Amino acid sequence: MNNKVSYTSFPNSEKMYVPGRLYDIRVPMRKIKLTPTVKLVDGKKVLIENAPVVVYDTSGPFTDPEIQVDLKKGIPRFRQSWIERRGDAELLSGMSSEYGRARLADHSLDSLRFEHNHPPYRAKSGHCLTQMYYARQGIITEEMEYVAIRENQQLEVEGIDSHITPEFVRQEIAAGRAVIPGNINHPECEPMIIGRNFLVKINTNLGNSNLSSGIEEEVEKAMWSCHWGGDTLMDLSTGNNIHETREWIVRNCPVPVGTVPIYQALEKVNGVVEDLTWELYRDTLIEQCEQGVDYFTIHAGLLRKHIPLAAKRVTGIVSRGGSILARWMTAHNEENFLYTHFQEICDVLKQYDVAVSLGDGLRPGCTADANDAAQFGELEALGELTKIAWANHVQTFIEGPGHVPMHKIKDNMDKQLECCMEAPFYTLGPLVTDIAPGYDHITSGIGAAMIGWYGTAMLCYVTPKEHLSLPDKEDVRVGVVTYKIAAHAADIAKGHPGVSLRDDALSKARFDFRWKDQFNLSLDPERAKEYFMARKGADQEGSEYCTMCGPNFCAMRISKEVSDCIQK
Amino acid sequence: MNNKVSYTSFPNSEKMYVPGRLYDIRVPMRKIKLTPTVKLVDGKKVLIENAPVVVYDTSGPFTDPEIQVDLKKGIPRFRQSWIERRGDAELLSGMSSEYGRARLADHSLDSLRFEHNHPPYRAKSGHCLTQMYYARQGIITEEMEYVAIRENQQLEVEGIDSHITPEFVRQEIAAGRAVIPGNINHPECEPMIIGRNFLVKINTNLGNSNLSSGIEEEVEKAMWSCHWGGDTLMDLSTGNNIHETREWIVRNCPVPVGTVPIYQALEKVNGVVEDLTWELYRDTLIEQCEQGVDYFTIHAGLLRKHIPLAAKRVTGIVSRGGSILARWMTAHNEENFLYTHFQEICDVLKQYDVAVSLGDGLRPGCTADANDAAQFGELEALGELTKIAWANHVQTFIEGPGHVPMHKIKDNMDKQLECCMEAPFYTLGPLVTDIAPGYDHITSGIGAAMIGWYGTAMLCYVTPKEHLSLPDKEDVRVGVVTYKIAAHAADIAKGHPGVSLRDDALSKARFDFRWKDQFNLSLDPERAKEYFMARKGADQEGSEYCTMCGPNFCAMRISKEVSDCIQK
Repeated sequence: MNNKVSYTSFPNSEKMYVPGRLYDIRVPMRKIKLTPTVKLVDGKKVLIENAPVVVYDTSGPFTDPEIQVDLKKGIPRFRQSWIERRGDAELLSGMSSEYGRARLADHSLDSLRFEHNHPPYRAKSGHCLTQMYYARQGIITEEMEYVAIRENQQLEVEGIDSHITPEFVRQEIAAGRAVIPGNINHPECEPMIIGRNFLVKINTNLGNSNLSSGIEEEVEKAMWSCHWGGDTLMDLSTGNNIHETREWIVRNCPVPVGTVPIYQALEKVNGVVEDLTWELYRDTLIEQCEQGVDYFTIHAGLLRKHIPLAAKRVTGIVSRGGSILARWMTAHNEENFLYTHFQEICDVLKQYDVAVSLGDGLRPGCTADANDAAQFGELEALGELTKIAWANHVQTFIEGPGHVPMHKIKDNMDKQLECCMEAPFYTLGPLVTDIAPGYDHITSGIGAAMIGWYGTAMLCYVTPKEHLSLPDKEDVRVGVVTYKIAAHAADIAKGHPGVSLRDDALSKARFDFRWKDQFNLSLDPERAKEYFMARKGADQEGSEYCTMCGPNFCAMRISKEVSDCIQK
Repeated sequence: MNNKVSYTSFPNSEKMYVPGRLYDIRVPMRKIKLTPTVKLVDGKKVLIENAPVVVYDTSGPFTDPEIQVDLKKGIPRFRQSWIERRGDAELLSGMSSEYGRARLADHSLDSLRFEHNHPPYRAKSGHCLTQMYYARQGIITEEMEYVAIRENQQLEVEGIDSHITPEFVRQEIAAGRAVIPGNINHPECEPMIIGRNFLVKINTNLGNSNLSSGIEEEVEKAMWSCHWGGDTLMDLSTGNNIHETREWIVRNCPVPVGTVPIYQALEKVNGVVEDLTWELYRDTLIEQCEQGVDYFTIHAGLLRKHIPLAAKRVTGIVSRGGSILARWMTAHNEENFLYTHFQEICDVLKQYDVAVSLGDGLRPGCTADANDAAQFGELEALGELTKIAWANHVQTFIEGPGHVPMHKIKDNMDKQLECCMEAPFYTLGPLVTDIAPGYDHITSGIGAAMIGWYGTAMLCYVTPKEHLSLPDKEDVRVGVVTYKIAAHAADIAKGHPGVSLRDDALSKARFDFRWKDQFNLSLDPERAKEYFMARKGADQEGSEYCTMCGPNFCAMRISKEVSDCIQK
C-alpha cells in the first residue's frame, strides 16, 4: 500500500482553522480566494477586491500542508485529550471481543493488519459518556462547540452572530433532535452534527463484496469520498477481512464511520442466516465499538407481524439487513432478536458513545410500495425503540426510504417526525421514479433535495450504478457531488444562516466573467474547468463571452452595458 | 450529408400505431416486449407471461421499419390532408418574406439548400385556422383526437377509460390551458399537447453559434434529441446560414420546432442591436412562419420600466433576447417594439397557427434574483399580452425561470397561473442552487421535477455543459434523459392516468431478476446495460444476484424466499 496520501486541496483554496472560545480547539474550514473584479472607470481599469469565501471542509488532515499523513500510522488522534480530560473513560488492556482477539492472534493476517494499533477505551463502571448524556447534564462539550463553529462557516470567520451557538447545539442534542456521532475509540474523527436544524449532511456507502475490491481500494475510496464532501461514510463490506479493512479505514478517517453489524455477523456464520445468534451479534457489536465505528445501522424495528405486509409488495424487502432478519424470524418462528435484545444493545453502545441508526428493513424498493402499511408499521416500532435508546442516553437517528414518488415525500417526513419524536431522519434518496437505472443519482437527488428541505438531517448518496453494479471512483465523485447539490439546495430552502453566500459569490463571478473564480467556487472545479476548456474555439479564460451565445449575443455582457448605461 | 438516417429503436421495442375513432389517423407508440417470469412450482420451472408496456414515442418515422427516411426529401407530410380538408388555408406561389426570397435567389447557397422545397400555406382571407379558434367553435380537430390517444398510451391500447378524451382536449385548448403547436407549414409534425392537465413535456435547445457546429451536426442533433424523448426542440442558431439550417431541420423533424426570431433578426443587422427595426423583425416572423416554425419565443413583456429593476440584480439580465431588447430600448429611449407591435405580431402568427411563447427576458440568472420585482413585473405584462393573443385565437404559453431556490418555486408557479390566467407555463429548470457548474442538469432537474408537479406544462432541458460550453451529443442525451426523469416524476406526482405502469413493470422485472426487461423498460437501456455488464466478476445476465450484495446478501433473493415461505 502506498503509505503517503497527500490530496491537494481544491484550486485557490487554503486550509484554515477557527479557534474555539470555550475550549482549546481548532475547527478546519476551507478558504476560497478570489480574484478582483475589473471595472472600467473613465476608460481606466480599476480593480475591486472580492473577499474570500469560507466553506465547510470534510477533507481532514489530508489537505493540511502542515501534516504529512502516513496511512500506516493513521491520522492525528486529536480528540483523545478531550476524552481523557472528561475522565469518564478507561483504557482497556486489549479488545473485549472474542472474535477481535482471535483475529489478532492469527499470524496469517499479519501482512494485512494495521500495525500501530491502540488499546480501546470504554466507559468506567457507573459513568456515562455519550454526548446526549452530557447535554442533558447541561454540559457543553468540546464536540458541541466544535460543531457550532463548523456550522457557521463564513459567519464565524466574519464574527457575524448566528443562532447556532454551542448552547443551541447542546439543547438540540439533549432533546434528541440532533446527534454528534463520535465513538471514543475514533478520536481521529472531526466532530459533525446531524439534525434538521443544522446543515443537511450526506453519507457515502463504501465496501467490498466477495466479488470485488480489496483493502487498498476501500481506504482510497474512503479518502476520496471525504475529498468531495462526504460527511460520514458507511463501510458495508461483506467480503473477506472485514475486520482488518475496517481498522485501516477508521484509523485514517476524519469523518464518522457507520456499519451494519449484521453483515459481518452473517459472514461469521458463512452466510447461513439461520445460524445467527444474539451472542455472536453482541460480540460483533463490541468488536466494532472497540475499533471505533461511530454508528450502527440496526434493523430492530422489523417485527414478525410486519412480514406478511411486505409479502404483498411489488418488490418485497429490499434492505439487505431487513431480508436477513425476516428470514431468521421465519426460520426460527421467533421475534427479531435485535428487538428482543434492544436494551442489551443500548448497554453496549452507551459505553463507547456509538450512535444507533435504526434501520428501515422495510423501506420501499419501488414507488408502488412507498408509504405502505409495512413501512409505516416498522416506523412505529422505531419510535418505541427510540424511547428505549434515549432512556439509555444513546444518540439515535432513524433510517428512511428508498423509493417514494414526490407527492408522498412530505407525508413520509411528517410521519417520521411524529412517530420518532423528532429524532433525526436519515434517508436513502428517495428515488422519485423507478424507470431510470443508470441515472439513479438523479432520480434520487430530486427526492433527496425535497426531503432535506422538509426536514431530513442526512442524505445517503446514490451513485449512477445503483441497482446495476458497485460504484468506481468516478461514480463516487458524481454521487457525492449530486448529493452535495441536494443538501445545499435544502439548506438554502431552509434558510440556514449564511448558506447562500457561496451561491451569490459564484453568481457575481459569473456576471463578472471571472471564470476561474466561478470554477473555484463550484462543487467540482476540475469538471467545470474541463467542460469550459474543451469548448470549440476556446480562447483564454478571461474572455467576456463563451460559446453558448457567441460575441454578439452574450446576454451578460449586453446586460452589463445596459446597466452601466442606466447607472451613468 | 448522409441522406439516410435509420435509427434503430430501443431494444425489444416495436413501433405500433393506434387508430383514431373520429378520424382516419394513426398515433405512434412504442411497445416494449417483456420476457416471462420464471417461477418454481413443485420443483418445476413455470413461465408466466408479462404483458408488453406501451409508452409515448417521440422518435417519428425514423424508428418505423416501413419507412426509409431520405433527409434530402424530408419525412412524410401526413398532416397536409387534414389542413386541406378543413379548407381554411391556401397555397401561396412562393415565400412572402423578402429575406426568404433573397436567400432563394442566391445561387451561392444552392449547395446548402434543402432541394425538395414546398410552397407555403397561409390562412385564406377572413378565415382563422388556429387550434384555439377551432376549439372555441366546438370543433374537435384531427390534432385533438391524436393527442388524446397519445396521452393515454397503454390505457388507450388496453381500452381502459381515461378522462383524457378528444372533447377534454378541446375544452382545455379553448380555455387557453393547453396548446397544440403545429404550424400549417410543418405538416411533418406529430401533434403533441402542452398543458398542465396532460403529460409534462420537455424541450431541448439546439443551435449553432458562430464559433461551432454546422448544418449536418444540427440536423443530426435534432434527430438525436427526438430519439431520446425530446417533445419539442428549439433551434437557437445564431451563426451563418440560419435560414438553410432551419429548413433542413423542419423538413425532417417529427416534433414542433421553436425559435427566438430576434436572434435571426439581429444576425441580419450584423449584431448591431440599435439597427433592429419592427419591419425587419416582421419579415423574419413571416419568413419563419412560412418555413414551418411551430412556436416563437417573443420577449414582448420586458418593458422600459422594468430595466432599472434588473440593474439592481446580482446577475442583471441573463436572457439573450431580454438583453437585446433592453439595450434597444435604452439606445432608442423607446418602449419595446415587440410590445407596441404585439397586435401586429398576432396578425401574422394566426395566419399560420404559430403559437407564441411569451419570453421571460427578466428570468433570474441566479437564486438571489429569483421572484424579484423585475421578474414578477414582467410576468404581469405577459398576462396582459396573453389576453391580446387569446383575443386573436393565437395559442399562447409563458416562459419562466431560470434559477429559483426550492422554497420559492411554488410561489413562482402560483403567480404565473394567476397573472397569466392558467396559460401553460414553460420553464428552464429552474436551478435550485448556483454552485454546481458542470452538474446543472442535476441542479435544474430538481427544480424542474418540482415545478412540473406544481403545474409547469413543459420543461426546457439543461445539459451538463450549461454556463460552460455548448452541448455535444452525449450532453444532449444526458440532458434529455434527466428531463424525462423530471417530467415523469411530475406525472406520477400529479397522478396522470396510467403513468406508473412503466415504473411498476420495471420494478417487477427487477424483483424477478429479469435484467434485460429492466434495461429495456428504462429511459436509457444502453446505459443501464453498459453499467451492469461492466461490473467485476460479471456473469450471465440471468444471475439471481449482482455485485452490490454478493450471493449471500442479495436482499431481493432472500426476500423472495421469505415470501415464498409465507405464502406456502
